[in-house]
Amino acid sequence: MLLKQIESKGLAHYSYLIGDGAEAAVIDPRRDVDIYIELARKNGMHLGTVLETHRNEDCLVGSLEIQRQTGAEVCHADDQLPYEYGRPVKGGDQWQVGRLRIKALKTPGHTPGSFSYLLHDAEGNPWAIFTGDALFAGDVGRVDFLGEDHIREMAGQLYDSLYSEILPLGDGVIVFPAHGSGSACGFDIAERRVSTVGIEKIANPALQHAGREDFISGVGKIMEKAPYFERMEKYNLEGAPPLGGIPDPKALSPAQFASESENQNALVVDVRTELEFGSSHIPGSLFVFSDGLERFAGFFVPPDRKLLLVGEGDYPEDCIVRLRRIGFDNIAGYLTGGMNHWQSAGLATASTKTVAVQGLCRILDRSDDFWLLDVRQTEELQKQGVITGAHHIPITQITERFDEVPRDENVYIFCGSGLRAMIVASILQQNDYDNISVALGGFRGWISTSCPIQSY
Amino acid sequence: MLLKQIESKGLAHYSYLIGDGAEAAVIDPRRDVDIYIELARKNGMHLGTVLETHRNEDCLVGSLEIQRQTGAEVCHADDQLPYEYGRPVKGGDQWQVGRLRIKALKTPGHTPGSFSYLLHDAEGNPWAIFTGDALFAGDVGRVDFLGEDHIREMAGQLYDSLYSEILPLGDGVIVFPAHGSGSACGFDIAERRVSTVGIEKIANPALQHAGREDFISGVGKIMEKAPYFERMEKYNLEGAPPLGGIPDPKALSPAQFASESENQNALVVDVRTELEFGSSHIPGSLFVFSDGLERFAGFFVPPDRKLLLVGEGDYPEDCIVRLRRIGFDNIAGYLTGGMNHWQSAGLATASTKTVAVQGLCRILDRSDDFWLLDVRQTEELQKQGVITGAHHIPITQITERFDEVPRDENVYIFCGSGLRAMIVASILQQNDYDNISVALGGFRGWISTSCPIQSY
Amino acid sequence: MLLKQIESKGLAHYSYLIGDGAEAAVIDPRRDVDIYIELARKNGMHLGTVLETHRNEDCLVGSLEIQRQTGAEVCHADDQLPYEYGRPVKGGDQWQVGRLRIKALKTPGHTPGSFSYLLHDAEGNPWAIFTGDALFAGDVGRVDFLGEDHIREMAGQLYDSLYSEILPLGDGVIVFPAHGSGSACGFDIAERRVSTVGIEKIANPALQHAGREDFISGVGKIMEKAPYFERMEKYNLEGAPPLGGIPDPKALSPAQFASESENQNALVVDVRTELEFGSSHIPGSLFVFSDGLERFAGFFVPPDRKLLLVGEGDYPEDCIVRLRRIGFDNIAGYLTGGMNHWQSAGLATASTKTVAVQGLCRILDRSDDFWLLDVRQTEELQKQGVITGAHHIPITQITERFDEVPRDENVYIFCGSGLRAMIVASILQQNDYDNISVALGGFRGWISTSCPIQSY
Amino acid sequence: MLLKQIESKGLAHYSYLIGDGAEAAVIDPRRDVDIYIELARKNGMHLGTVLETHRNEDCLVGSLEIQRQTGAEVCHADDQLPYEYGRPVKGGDQWQVGRLRIKALKTPGHTPGSFSYLLHDAEGNPWAIFTGDALFAGDVGRVDFLGEDHIREMAGQLYDSLYSEILPLGDGVIVFPAHGSGSACGFDIAERRVSTVGIEKIANPALQHAGREDFISGVGKIMEKAPYFERMEKYNLEGAPPLGGIPDPKALSPAQFASESENQNALVVDVRTELEFGSSHIPGSLFVFSDGLERFAGFFVPPDRKLLLVGEGDYPEDCIVRLRRIGFDNIAGYLTGGMNHWQSAGLATASTKTVAVQGLCRILDRSDDFWLLDVRQTEELQKQGVITGAHHIPITQITERFDEVPRDENVYIFCGSGLRAMIVASILQQNDYDNISVALGGFRGWISTSCPIQSY
Repeated sequence: MLLKQIESKGLAHYSYLIGDGAEAAVIDPRRDVDIYIELARKNGMHLGTVLETHRNEDCLVGSLEIQRQTGAEVCHADDQLPYEYGRPVKGGDQWQVGRLRIKALKTPGHTPGSFSYLLHDAEGNPWAIFTGDALFAGDVGRVDFLGEDHIREMAGQLYDSLYSEILPLGDGVIVFPAHGSGSACGFDIAERRVSTVGIEKIANPALQHAGREDFISGVGKIMEKAPYFERMEKYNLEGAPPLGGIPDPKALSPAQFASESENQNALVVDVRTELEFGSSHIPGSLFVFSDGLERFAGFFVPPDRKLLLVGEGDYPEDCIVRLRRIGFDNIAGYLTGGMNHWQSAGLATASTKTVAVQGLCRILDRSDDFWLLDVRQTEELQKQGVITGAHHIPITQITERFDEVPRDENVYIFCGSGLRAMIVASILQQNDYDNISVALGGFRGWISTSCPIQSY
Repeated sequence: MLLKQIESKGLAHYSYLIGDGAEAAVIDPRRDVDIYIELARKNGMHLGTVLETHRNEDCLVGSLEIQRQTGAEVCHADDQLPYEYGRPVKGGDQWQVGRLRIKALKTPGHTPGSFSYLLHDAEGNPWAIFTGDALFAGDVGRVDFLGEDHIREMAGQLYDSLYSEILPLGDGVIVFPAHGSGSACGFDIAERRVSTVGIEKIANPALQHAGREDFISGVGKIMEKAPYFERMEKYNLEGAPPLGGIPDPKALSPAQFASESENQNALVVDVRTELEFGSSHIPGSLFVFSDGLERFAGFFVPPDRKLLLVGEGDYPEDCIVRLRRIGFDNIAGYLTGGMNHWQSAGLATASTKTVAVQGLCRILDRSDDFWLLDVRQTEELQKQGVITGAHHIPITQITERFDEVPRDENVYIFCGSGLRAMIVASILQQNDYDNISVALGGFRGWISTSCPIQSY
Repeated sequence: MLLKQIESKGLAHYSYLIGDGAEAAVIDPRRDVDIYIELARKNGMHLGTVLETHRNEDCLVGSLEIQRQTGAEVCHADDQLPYEYGRPVKGGDQWQVGRLRIKALKTPGHTPGSFSYLLHDAEGNPWAIFTGDALFAGDVGRVDFLGEDHIREMAGQLYDSLYSEILPLGDGVIVFPAHGSGSACGFDIAERRVSTVGIEKIANPALQHAGREDFISGVGKIMEKAPYFERMEKYNLEGAPPLGGIPDPKALSPAQFASESENQNALVVDVRTELEFGSSHIPGSLFVFSDGLERFAGFFVPPDRKLLLVGEGDYPEDCIVRLRRIGFDNIAGYLTGGMNHWQSAGLATASTKTVAVQGLCRILDRSDDFWLLDVRQTEELQKQGVITGAHHIPITQITERFDEVPRDENVYIFCGSGLRAMIVASILQQNDYDNISVALGGFRGWISTSCPIQSY
Repeated sequence: MLLKQIESKGLAHYSYLIGDGAEAAVIDPRRDVDIYIELARKNGMHLGTVLETHRNEDCLVGSLEIQRQTGAEVCHADDQLPYEYGRPVKGGDQWQVGRLRIKALKTPGHTPGSFSYLLHDAEGNPWAIFTGDALFAGDVGRVDFLGEDHIREMAGQLYDSLYSEILPLGDGVIVFPAHGSGSACGFDIAERRVSTVGIEKIANPALQHAGREDFISGVGKIMEKAPYFERMEKYNLEGAPPLGGIPDPKALSPAQFASESENQNALVVDVRTELEFGSSHIPGSLFVFSDGLERFAGFFVPPDRKLLLVGEGDYPEDCIVRLRRIGFDNIAGYLTGGMNHWQSAGLATASTKTVAVQGLCRILDRSDDFWLLDVRQTEELQKQGVITGAHHIPITQITERFDEVPRDENVYIFCGSGLRAMIVASILQQNDYDNISVALGGFRGWISTSCPIQSY
């Protein structure tokens, strides 16, 4: 018997492989499906079934890819949508996987046709529920995807799904959600990678409301939606292109890289650390730290640009995989040997000034010549507090609002730790700002010193 | 945050690594501890705490080995025992592992000083209980280790531990036991690798008794105890010898192997498949299939013999690790190139006759010249039924009772599938039986045909 | 700088990856090309060039597959052939790979348009020659592929290639051939995986002839040609189908396997050890030990059959890769759990009798009721000697000549060690022979005992 | 048959594993010996023989460690030295490894008792010579270890070893040296990882001298000797301590790391990239890029300091291995989470100014306020040229000569690429210099632009 949670970092996405005897099934597979096929093989199982909890918005699913390789049957939730492959799930559908049994429960709310899947163990006991984006550890799914007009309706559906379908399964049933802490699909998901109905009833803030109406008011709010979500939704209806057919990003020497980057359509994306980018980078490049690729490339990288990556110098496999998970198949190459080779080739570089939080604290204390920019999300300001006098532009709005940032003052940018601030700095530099510094350590560093804060 | 279940196959032993921030703790580590240290390293954590749920009987713990390598504090349960390292746990002891908190609950019954450990998540919620051998999925721990006289007392203690300490934690608390399906520490452990208090309350047969007295009568029984358990108990008090100091088993050519095996104290252990052993093996060798090494080498391999392994021809790493987990450090070498090289060197071989169940069925039908030997455990006979006319000697009693097997009839040995029957055949052949055949497929194969069975 | 020899066991095929700076080239890639692409990636290189020494006969080349993935240029030798992709090499062509330089030398003889490639190191010194099938360690290439009529002509061409192109490069030049010991492309290739012109001049028997005429007489002979070679030749002109598009062989339970194997077109191929096959196998299956798949599946497996594999029970990845290297893409599934599960399902089995060489020796000594079958190749008989009275049918002729084997005598089959004899036994059993035994240890075992031999 | 070259990067050290049948031997093993033992195991061989070409100076040998684990016989060259384990080699000694034969040739010169080992293939042909530090690709060994007085004598011995023992073996014999390009044991070793006697005769500059006297004058020169060499020499006589007994460096949170670093004896070593160090580092830390650890930690890290490592945040395994290869066993811990966590904890940081070569070129062009420091080795200046006006202090002399660097001018440091310049900058900053900048790209970047150079 096999029950395996597979995490995709960055997306904080969980998929699940279930197997027994010669058979296996996967729930909500990601696009790079080797891990499921290998695991099934290693256990002597045939991966014959793919179940989706909903039409995913934040990443490409690998359902069609698995079907191509193993001939698996693909079962979609959200059956009102025009899928071009697979077949729709119906409430009460059951799948036998060896001695295990999986049953579909209709649990709309996050999307109109979301499903959860209840797994019974070899002896027939209800054992675990795969809740997709209906129920997370410490949070519930977003209900704003149909827009403002439908929020209350969707929140009501979610309430009913939770209170009529999932919670009545019993406190002892294990809960396996589709996302964990850090996902863009929930604001405040807890770090428990595995939970239970009983724990969520006690510890999940979204399940502490006084009745349906209170729940609807509490969870029914508009959240930010990354611009790339729409492409994911479209791709997931059509089936993403096979990964095997995408050309391999080329190793490029500094001279080759420089030449490729002059192409009008090229965009240099720098996936190194914020410190390396600060010291030396290729002028005009966009900084996105590798762990943030899923979250921020989706915001700041136009889908039609030809990407050129700057990493540590070797093949940036992890970054390529992450970009492909959200549909960036147009990665033309990477700088082999990294910036050390670029610099040794005498090619042009730029830098971004950095300042430690203690230094920033002293500057704010002694001078008036500064313009402090806070790029955290509004929820963080509410929860953690703010620095007096700081201007607030959430990172996700920077491309529309950068004109608010002055060009004639010393601009200090901060976020939580310095990572997102460096992304914003790179975008401002692309727009010819030369008066900016990034505060290393960010708000977390700030509050660890004796520098003053105030509440939002 | 890190929470990882590590399985040792064969022993069906589960240990757990828990970590957060820069700190990690392990519960009931096995002897080969690299996996914990590597996992902690990979997550940037220091493995600083080792917790034991009880003094283990079926395998060597790696507590002292971890202490040697990382300087970890070792905390023992069963504090009345004379440990030569570490310190005793007391009820209510707490450990902080980053933001996680672990609390010791005294849960005697399996042993007089058994402990369980309750893990609270980063937000302080009771999240999971590590129950050691107190509570398994689908079973509870053995209570017979102090002998017949103490069974009722220990069963009573176990009842109190379960009903006063563990079950009241709430249905939603996740249950992580020390053993899974196939362990010698429970007869009928279910295959759920993770369970909850709620599921066990419903699905665990041992928790369905009508009150304390009924529980005591139900679980209070003597089970078989492997002869090697005593050595494990002693080693676990002293701390097992460091694995790093044990000499590497040597690759031996057929000539070298033949020469080494003539040593009075040498024992050839054949860890190949039952089919290969049947076709051709070194005369006098003991067959133990590799997955059965923990269970059967402990029964049939005297601790003071110098072991020589026959495997597929390459370094039998997995088998060496398994033998060392139960304290066999005296593995002198292995036959490089396997039996193919042995045979090509013109050295002597023996074989063991096999028969398919259909063939056996025909023989039993048509002839009287047979003596059928069933070597399954009594519990299996009770549960699965028997073949009319079969003689029953459980495999674990074969060394004391082989004289009951006739030397002048055609003896057919069967077990569940054929694996254990081949072990028994190899022991009988060591004792100069030449009239035996092994039934391939065993009782499982038998009942899949139309051959007749009856209940025990 | 990178220079890597990649071996494909079984085929004893060597391919080579050469790289420097951001660039890499591969010589004679095999069909499963991940290893080259991964190695180039790991070294920050782009695999941009594929060079072939000749149109390969014994395996599929991966040239087109690499081109698909990396866009590499494919350069074919044997330019008179109608390739459907790539471009022909011309003598004197040069490639720059970073600071390294590769130069094409026309070296016909094995095929009419064979090439060798001379590699110069970073400082411009002639460093190594990739000789393809022109020159091996201890042997030279076959010259019989155009048929008897052309043997002397081709041998003459090979002589000229060796003595006018390769040997004059200087004794110090390193020799990297396309095949090593065990290949079907040479009878007696030495085990030196790397050699030099100087060593070959001294130690290669084929280079010890007294002049051109003597060389032609010595090497100009017809060797056996596996029936699958023709398909390889055709595929290598067209480009083999992409591996990514071939469906994954399915894990099949015993019942599913039994059902699939009833399909008229299905062929069960057993890739376990000869000992396991002897003990118990599925009736009608063909035995081919896994290391012999390239050599013997090409002889005995019709290309249009749907293959069902019996291995150890897990996914037989290595065997699948080996079969695909020689174009068997029609592997429908494998028996998950192996014969142990098959037997436990009560399904029918067969066995093949085995006898140790000592036993055989005694039988031959004491009885007249035997028919001894030697299935080694003629060259082995010449080199190693024979057993008096043995009948000789080389394994490669068994399908045409099995009628010579009597059905009413005790037939004992032997080869070098027992492996090939078991293949022959399985073929005879497919043809309803029930009077055969396989001699374990074979001729090697025989001569290690005191049993008598004589020269051929 | 097995013949494997194992490279230790950084040291550019080659060791070799040779095996056949059930036996294997290793030549000049490094301290971390798992790779040899694993390789031998994987090939079904017993690693029974360790051969040393000379008493190593630049790294610890693993001979005693292998003996501890496998019981191998250790054979030392330089037999006049007082080894505390193993036995001395004598000229003409032979070892049989399966069918292979190894023969010891006395080849003094690099050290008084150096040996080379001649390997014969399975058929008895001289196949390869392991030359230790006598002969490299493109260079010969240093002869200055006994001091100025003995240089001519040792150079003469080396000449005789080369011309009487090694070169007469024949052009076709393969040459496997103990070091490759980048080693401190030769100035200008070529990148051919494998060479032959014939290639070296043509392409090795040290073999182009006009006779013995000319050779002696040409190669007899004093080179720099790293201060740690003496410890290596001592350790290699005694046998290095077992790696298994060295405590695991601890993962330290920022607070723990800060506390540990206050210990008088602690030294923070920063092994990140030069760009990261430039942006932000812990005040007082020594920068050594990880690939330079063997070369520069030996110069700049006192052996008795307790080391605390700053890397990318995860366990810096590669750096720990590298430091242990040269005897630094006192690594107390590392900063888990890296500088991002340190900064987010609000702890103090420092930075080092950097400038691109184009920027530096402009500064030199337009201003007089600069002091340019070239820290390359003298040989590089001779070979590559210099920048007009630059002051020269080789990096290896910086600790004795840093007083020559002014504290009141803008100091710009450069080396080949920027890496060594950052080491020097960190040492100057430890000595309270606050007026320094590092030129990124270094001399290689400089000459790639149009900035002027002159010859030395």
